[in-house]
Amino acid sequence: MTKKIILDLDTGVDDALALAYALASEELELIGVTGTYGNVLVETGVRNTLAILELFGASDVPVFAGPDHASTKDGFEVLPISEFIHGKNGVGEAELPEPSASVQDKSAVDFLVESVAKYGDDLVIVPTGPSTTIAAAIEADEDFARNAHIVMMGGALTVPGNVSPVAEANVNQDPEATNTVFQRAQDVTMIGLDVTLQTLLTYEETKLWRELGTAGGRFLADATDYYIKSYETNSPHLGGCGLHDPLAVGVAVDPSLVTTLGINLKVETEGPTRGRVIGDETRLNDANKTAQVAVGVDVERFLKEFMERLTRLAREH
Amino acid sequence: MTKKIILDLDTGVDDALALAYALASEELELIGVTGTYGNVLVETGVRNTLAILELFGASDVPVFAGPDHASTKDGFEVLPISEFIHGKNGVGEAELPEPSASVQDKSAVDFLVESVAKYGDDLVIVPTGPSTTIAAAIEADEDFARNAHIVMMGGALTVPGNVSPVAEANVNQDPEATNTVFQRAQDVTMIGLDVTLQTLLTYEETKLWRELGTAGGRFLADATDYYIKSYETNSPHLGGCGLHDPLAVGVAVDPSLVTTLGINLKVETEGPTRGRVIGDETRLNDANKTAQVAVGVDVERFLKEFMERLTRLAREH
Repeated sequence: MTKKIILDLDTGVDDALALAYALASEELELIGVTGTYGNVLVETGVRNTLAILELFGASDVPVFAGPDHASTKDGFEVLPISEFIHGKNGVGEAELPEPSASVQDKSAVDFLVESVAKYGDDLVIVPTGPSTTIAAAIEADEDFARNAHIVMMGGALTVPGNVSPVAEANVNQDPEATNTVFQRAQDVTMIGLDVTLQTLLTYEETKLWRELGTAGGRFLADATDYYIKSYETNSPHLGGCGLHDPLAVGVAVDPSLVTTLGINLKVETEGPTRGRVIGDETRLNDANKTAQVAVGVDVERFLKEFMERLTRLAREH
Repeated sequence: MTKKIILDLDTGVDDALALAYALASEELELIGVTGTYGNVLVETGVRNTLAILELFGASDVPVFAGPDHASTKDGFEVLPISEFIHGKNGVGEAELPEPSASVQDKSAVDFLVESVAKYGDDLVIVPTGPSTTIAAAIEADEDFARNAHIVMMGGALTVPGNVSPVAEANVNQDPEATNTVFQRAQDVTMIGLDVTLQTLLTYEETKLWRELGTAGGRFLADATDYYIKSYETNSPHLGGCGLHDPLAVGVAVDPSLVTTLGINLKVETEGPTRGRVIGDETRLNDANKTAQVAVGVDVERFLKEFMERLTRLAREH
């Protein structure tokens, strides 16, 4: 049986790879994509999502726009570091024809709430950007918080952050929202830098995509090469780029790719540790753990799955 | 076969309980205790250790004094919070007759280095205070770093610290020293607040010791009651006192009491996150993990072992 999935993307490069991973996975039925801000503006992300869906023959998947900034802020501008990593157009300046489909009128929050009500345990939600939209769905509906199954890319529990020693980029955009998710959602799997900086892609793999000679292969290779190049400057010790968002989709397909630690989490919202994900000491001895943090990953198996699936998809498009 | 053990204590209340645990464990042969500063001054800690050894019929165990302050500082004064938790005399104002034995002339560092050279894999070292002495042994001898097996109480990886949002008390006293341990020692098991705040003792248990009617039972009950009282003020949400140091000894006896995460660690030494234990991102993908961090504990089994052992010891003394 296939599992229904909704991706909540701020469609940058690794979001694009996550979207391709979902489309390439027969175990998943992508019932919609919600768009958030983060790597890019909401409108850029939505546009990229629509164009990538079309590129890979899935223009029937509906796309919904979420809030365009954190509820604690007045607006949002793309950070220079995000533009450096993902390019001005969000997909590493790779060419993507204008999509023919348009964003839905329904809001992302309504779509999320209705989908959880409709599909319950048959649905998994994979947010790969700031938690603003998911937190809004939690605020909007008690049942969403109680029943949603969330596999999120974000945070860093056992390793330093990537925008500060304590904060990871997604959580950093809206710490209050991620805290709402950790405090109120009942089933969250956190795929953070703890594991995503272990799953690295290099030019060796993107070369295989380029050699396919398809539009899809060229797009994946161009976008990812730009992204790898930013890692050569920002994180030369890694020797590749982190497959952050795709790993979250990989875990939605197959939870056994990671080992997890059951823990109740919070996000610190005050002072110099703002944006830090850490255990909630007031719920340390509560036997009910609402989060599972990935602390180990089967790197080899994930990379094999990732390359097989994306290469198959790109060969056909 | 018994395992040889050296405790490195700043003998406060939970250090006293850890010492009693070691003496009560037939699996262990306590070949010496080294004294450090932290909960108390070195001289107070050494005095307490000698007195407790005598109380429990083990005055033949040699005690060695380590450095009396961090190498990065000019001196050391007991913090008001330490005095609040452990009392002026370090053992919750419980009465302890003057010991007849004296501290050894040999330094703690020399004793540690010589013992690792002599016993190798048959020896485990359990530091329950600042890392100053262990770091000094590492600096003194390459073989110590390579061959020592260390089970340390200290740090907080997945939960907040207890002296700041990021720092645990032992690491906070000498972050550079703990960083030396994590960077250079090849086998460190970290028993931090992640697990020690799950293993709680209450007045119900200390009552059992008091009712034994022995000097040992009275001492354990008086010291621990003082300690529990400080928790009622500082951490009322816990509903008991954390058995920090005894858990490290428990794990030295039986590693299966905890589940661990293999990880290469560092201690941040600069800025607002000074004293924070976190994964070393430069060694994230190094397959050789020099530390195991306890992230889960079999609370019930540990408390049962702890109470059985200490009650048996206190009944006889």
